Amino acid sequence: MDYILNMAQRAKGASKALGRMKARDKNRILTAMGEKLRASHEYIIEENMKDLTAGRERGLAEAFIDRLTLTPERIYAMASGLIKMAEFTDPVGESIRGWTLENGLKIEEVRVPIGVIAMIFESRPNVTVDAAGLCLKSGNAIILRGGSDAINSNKALAKLITEAGREAGMPEGAVQLVEKTDRSLVGELLSLHHLIDAVVPRGGRGLKKVITELSKIPIIETGAGICHLYIDREVDEDMALNILINAKTQRPGVCNAVETLLIHVNKMEMLGKVEDALATRGVELRVDERGIGYMTRAVAAAEEDWDTEYLAPILSIKVVEGIEEAIDHINKYGTGHSEAIVTNSVVSSERFLREVDAACVYVNASTRFTDGGEFGFGGEIGISTQKLHARGPMGVRELTTGKYIIRGSGQIR
Amino acid sequence: MDYILNMAQRAKGASKALGRMKARDKNRILTAMGEKLRASHEYIIEENMKDLTAGRERGLAEAFIDRLTLTPERIYAMASGLIKMAEFTDPVGESIRGWTLENGLKIEEVRVPIGVIAMIFESRPNVTVDAAGLCLKSGNAIILRGGSDAINSNKALAKLITEAGREAGMPEGAVQLVEKTDRSLVGELLSLHHLIDAVVPRGGRGLKKVITELSKIPIIETGAGICHLYIDREVDEDMALNILINAKTQRPGVCNAVETLLIHVNKMEMLGKVEDALATRGVELRVDERGIGYMTRAVAAAEEDWDTEYLAPILSIKVVEGIEEAIDHINKYGTGHSEAIVTNSVVSSERFLREVDAACVYVNASTRFTDGGEFGFGGEIGISTQKLHARGPMGVRELTTGKYIIRGSGQIR
Repeated sequence: MDYILNMAQRAKGASKALGRMKARDKNRILTAMGEKLRASHEYIIEENMKDLTAGRERGLAEAFIDRLTLTPERIYAMASGLIKMAEFTDPVGESIRGWTLENGLKIEEVRVPIGVIAMIFESRPNVTVDAAGLCLKSGNAIILRGGSDAINSNKALAKLITEAGREAGMPEGAVQLVEKTDRSLVGELLSLHHLIDAVVPRGGRGLKKVITELSKIPIIETGAGICHLYIDREVDEDMALNILINAKTQRPGVCNAVETLLIHVNKMEMLGKVEDALATRGVELRVDERGIGYMTRAVAAAEEDWDTEYLAPILSIKVVEGIEEAIDHINKYGTGHSEAIVTNSVVSSERFLREVDAACVYVNASTRFTDGGEFGFGGEIGISTQKLHARGPMGVRELTTGKYIIRGSGQIR
Repeated sequence: MDYILNMAQRAKGASKALGRMKARDKNRILTAMGEKLRASHEYIIEENMKDLTAGRERGLAEAFIDRLTLTPERIYAMASGLIKMAEFTDPVGESIRGWTLENGLKIEEVRVPIGVIAMIFESRPNVTVDAAGLCLKSGNAIILRGGSDAINSNKALAKLITEAGREAGMPEGAVQLVEKTDRSLVGELLSLHHLIDAVVPRGGRGLKKVITELSKIPIIETGAGICHLYIDREVDEDMALNILINAKTQRPGVCNAVETLLIHVNKMEMLGKVEDALATRGVELRVDERGIGYMTRAVAAAEEDWDTEYLAPILSIKVVEGIEEAIDHINKYGTGHSEAIVTNSVVSSERFLREVDAACVYVNASTRFTDGGEFGFGGEIGISTQKLHARGPMGVRELTTGKYIIRGSGQIR
């Protein structure tokens, strides 16, 4: 217990210093971290190799090994991410709004860091670097707890960025990695509500379920994505196919990929083209009763298909009577992540935007754009699928909270 | 279970209709509710009398009876609150920000209702009306669960506003009161995370502790207030005394009243005046070793005094070496609610504003202004003392979340 408690106390202490740091000083640290990673790619790759070897020995799936792998290109991308963050506007101290009461009291809402964030994540070691950078930029201390499969990679990355940070003036305790992989430590971390302000779980359903049940600290849930694409009655068919191909196949293993195609009953004849486009790209199609007759290589969809985040080259397809049924289906089975309509009708597009209950709702574009980097946030700590605090991609702004500053001249009630 | 489940399902259904309602239609309902309350004050007072009689029989404290009591004036104030809300800007649909990506995608963040709110509160029946009005205005459905002591008053108020609402076109299920007082129903309510989006507890520590432990739904914690006033070395003594008297005695039973006075060591001689001002107003003074010598009617403070929200005419007093010790004390014992400094020094005031970690930080004004009504929000659902989602007084804006709307012309990644 002392190991985690000491870590949280150091983080709390660091958060006070971080909250007061000038943007220039934080940016110098970010740049130093990025440069250190660039200069140390050989060491990182050596350490990463230990995880890859151990993972292969344990028989991890190739998709998993791929997410775990660090190449010089991936290391340079992480490093550039940090250096780019240094160029971003600092969110801390931003005046959100301000007004003066009739009695002369001046009220101002300013943006301040949240404090201490705990990030609990699986496999991908780049999260160590991205999360540390975003938290530092927004003035928060961070405690990172990665998966045991990536422990050597995470330790190497954390060692380099904390060393570079310390040399550039980062407060001790600002970025810490839980190096022990004992699972009970997660429970201890999640009990420290007086020291840690928010927990961000990033990983599969199992991880999130455990954290939601254990945590005494407020959680920001991220990344569950059963995303839909609805092809409306009047559409540009080429555009619809392009968007579908992109949303399903460009990277099927991520949360903003499409899992279910909903198609207007008058567009059923498009299903042949859908099959041609996707089956040749290795996508398995699971189709409802009405649609399956238009296809030759599809299998029948079961009820649980509508409720499944495949994260794989599988697409479920359902024929709907119209936009109302499409919206109802999405609001019933969707996870509130990203939903798209392809349509030429302004009536349909406006209705879809208004009635679909999700973080990101698209008209005539791929759901794959739901991403902090794509949105221009310079990275993301995750994609929130809850409604409180933040919704959608979370960048540095979403790692802050408000504080009311009230200046008076003796006012009383 | 069916009773609560049905209620939550009706609320979920109503929330969809509410989210799409025009501001004009919601405002008509608010006005109708206010007029109905005004016209029905005799009936309300009759029902309230039942609670008061039962409460006196059970030997409830007079302060409690006072909070429970509805007078024609209090009923008119509630009614006027609803009618005023109708005049406020509707937060739903507000464009929070918008930008266009290099690829032509137009991203807009718009304000939308949270969905379904559950409000669990004690004694004060005006919460029924205020919370219903604020949720309706912000397009949220609300499930209200008040204390059993106020059950007749709450039932009367809920009956009147739902009747008036229904006649004016409010969706069925938009405002619902849990009329059964069985405590196990609270646990059932707090388990329905697929139907209820947020829980707002409003009441004592005991209530909040139970809810935090039971809830599977995100919580917005409100109202714990160990608030401090720090009198700095250089001050206008009259201003300091005025603010202290107001912050401690104007309404000692509320969360934004001051519980602890911190005073600069060079200002110890002011303690005689503090005693004169407060002891004559019936305030018990609990003072540390250094300060007690300057007073004649004070008792010695114990360690637990720094950690106690009296909600009563009691003030603890501590002498500090300077602003650093004052800030450390506040950040250690404060609940992150409202903190004030009285000073003539701009160095002190800026440091206090920056380093004190609380929702509302005051310079030269009473902490009693931390209130949605005083801030100009037209009421409040509570005062958040947490950092996620909302911090400080929560009005209609804080009852909304964001939604990203993305308009494209075929963009893919």
